Amino acid sequence: MPIRSITREFIGKPIRCKAAICKKSGEPLVIEEVELDPPKSWEVRIKILCTSLCHSDVTFWKMDSSAPAAKFPIILGHEAVGVVESVGEHVEEVKEGDLVVPVFLANCGECRDCESRKSNMCSKFGSGAIRDMPRDGTSRFRDMNGKVVHHLLGVSSFSQYTVVDVTHVVKIHHHFPLHMACLLSCGVSTGVGAAWKVADVEKGSTVAIFGLGAVGLAVAVAAKQRGASKIIGVDLNQDKFEIGKQFGVTDFVNPSSCNDKSVSEVIKDMTDGGADYCFECIGLASLMAEAFNSSREGWGKTVIIGVEMHGSPLSVSSYSILKGRTITGSLFGGFKPKTDIPLLANKYLDKELNLDGFVSQEVDFKDINKAFDYLLQGNTIRCIIRMDH
Amino acid sequence: MPIRSITREFIGKPIRCKAAICKKSGEPLVIEEVELDPPKSWEVRIKILCTSLCHSDVTFWKMDSSAPAAKFPIILGHEAVGVVESVGEHVEEVKEGDLVVPVFLANCGECRDCESRKSNMCSKFGSGAIRDMPRDGTSRFRDMNGKVVHHLLGVSSFSQYTVVDVTHVVKIHHHFPLHMACLLSCGVSTGVGAAWKVADVEKGSTVAIFGLGAVGLAVAVAAKQRGASKIIGVDLNQDKFEIGKQFGVTDFVNPSSCNDKSVSEVIKDMTDGGADYCFECIGLASLMAEAFNSSREGWGKTVIIGVEMHGSPLSVSSYSILKGRTITGSLFGGFKPKTDIPLLANKYLDKELNLDGFVSQEVDFKDINKAFDYLLQGNTIRCIIRMDH
Repeated sequence: MPIRSITREFIGKPIRCKAAICKKSGEPLVIEEVELDPPKSWEVRIKILCTSLCHSDVTFWKMDSSAPAAKFPIILGHEAVGVVESVGEHVEEVKEGDLVVPVFLANCGECRDCESRKSNMCSKFGSGAIRDMPRDGTSRFRDMNGKVVHHLLGVSSFSQYTVVDVTHVVKIHHHFPLHMACLLSCGVSTGVGAAWKVADVEKGSTVAIFGLGAVGLAVAVAAKQRGASKIIGVDLNQDKFEIGKQFGVTDFVNPSSCNDKSVSEVIKDMTDGGADYCFECIGLASLMAEAFNSSREGWGKTVIIGVEMHGSPLSVSSYSILKGRTITGSLFGGFKPKTDIPLLANKYLDKELNLDGFVSQEVDFKDINKAFDYLLQGNTIRCIIRMDH
Repeated sequence: MPIRSITREFIGKPIRCKAAICKKSGEPLVIEEVELDPPKSWEVRIKILCTSLCHSDVTFWKMDSSAPAAKFPIILGHEAVGVVESVGEHVEEVKEGDLVVPVFLANCGECRDCESRKSNMCSKFGSGAIRDMPRDGTSRFRDMNGKVVHHLLGVSSFSQYTVVDVTHVVKIHHHFPLHMACLLSCGVSTGVGAAWKVADVEKGSTVAIFGLGAVGLAVAVAAKQRGASKIIGVDLNQDKFEIGKQFGVTDFVNPSSCNDKSVSEVIKDMTDGGADYCFECIGLASLMAEAFNSSREGWGKTVIIGVEMHGSPLSVSSYSILKGRTITGSLFGGFKPKTDIPLLANKYLDKELNLDGFVSQEVDFKDINKAFDYLLQGNTIRCIIRMDH
């Protein structure tokens, strides 16, 4: 059966499938059979075709069992593409066989935020960080002993099948390349949106990007597309300069080679007083402050993208911000999933958005733990995990 | 001689006049004769007609002698209006007899910032915080023993005459009301600019203002003019609610009457999740954080106006900012003095900007220390100091 095809035999019934389960914080995932309920009202059951590993999965994987958001066993994974296998009552937006991208951020289309052009923080459903399914708070997954297995971020894509609320599903062209669709599901959209929508980088401006992972490189691609004159990558891994050049990075600062200067002093020297736009793509409060200090007086804007790893506060000079500087933050690059992912997909097809080079590795589902190894070793941009079916 | 007239007898020569000198941090000002040099190239000597006391003057007045910016004896005062007595070489923008407003923020008109519509932070001259005259770093004032008396913020208006760089001078209509001109010189422009230019408050939006001094009340006036639907004043002084109503304040939160709730929780309850725009007009890091916490997820913008009194950093949750919130800061409300003060003056004359009620007291120059008393007691909006001549 072609991978994009679906079977109708389980419609309305639980489905048995393989999932990679995280049983304990930091332990290798275990591939086991799970039972997945059919979608309830407003829900969609998706056959996952491929998924990839994002840093946030690792954050949740490492999360101490005592943290409020921690819940084990859990099925991680939130960057993916799949085909709708079946839909619950009231779902009209997608139907069986549609190619869809699940997204961690809801987009109900009806709340004050979804109706406003200024927000992408759906105030009816929010981001699916803590709960299982957003409407009733329960899980659709069980292990073979009947014990609940939890969802992650409203997606849980490290499974052959998953159930997702319709507010977390975006339909795309049926023939869209799967790897590219996967990238648009989280990391790449986040970086592109941060540059285009949140910062609104313009022609000739200077940009500093702290952290050249997939999100940071997506910022570079988007800044280059806008015509930025200087795109400075900041990373401790010197190899990232050569890699970054393929994505638009023009200059590089390795914090370990700044001698007696701070990174922000080096960037100020390179940009005649500070970069117009600074992006923090790691999630470290100290780097957020350094990004801010690298931004230009008068109009410098710092965009926080990284989720702070230790829960530390963002702390900057209260005097420096008075000099016309701005700090802003966003999830998913400020993009509204349902309207902006299809636009990005079109830009990719029209060759206005270059997504080449983001896929650095591919592994089979059975080797999913290798994807974690690659990411932890820092040798990956995005590792695609091919689901077997 | 009418107050707006000038004498030509001292052109090109030092002038003797009375000034209120701050000899030591925190001590009452002493009115003494000083000698003031004629303006050098690019400088303007101004006969001050009236001046008023702004919180920043008190900050400098209190500044510990060991602080880097501290320099005594000094002539404070930076909110004023006056008539040009004489000009130095190369000054063509104003001439003898022009009514002018001196401003602490330079506006050279030629640097990258002055040429950009995004900035008001003149990168050639900056704000005159530390130096005496901006071009040569020296003072034009001497006491009767020939000892240097320092300038403040490029203005030093607590003197019958002062010398100001031409980049710090804005010409206005000769018949403009003096008290109103004085207000536009600093505090009122700062508040109006924060609401109109920095926040860009729109019709129907909700606004929270932390601190109902002159700047905070000017934010209220400007937000009301834009059609904000709810303007919440936050102040420990309960009397400020009745006062605030005259300026557009519709609701009030007294932090000492919030019981077990934080101010931000109260504001979130009042605004269905948080105010669209929050303004910190005091200069306390804890209030800046509370203003940020009072801002709405999705698009809430917090504007920092107050100069932090203790040098404490601005510190907020690095996770909260990810949810579409923004913090920005500005000096002089993001306004460019030379273009925006005349526009504000016109709006006042056209009755689009209501400046009534800002002048709460008037004192003669000889009683200038009373203006400090009023401000320290919290019983003032703006106290106008009438210069004698």
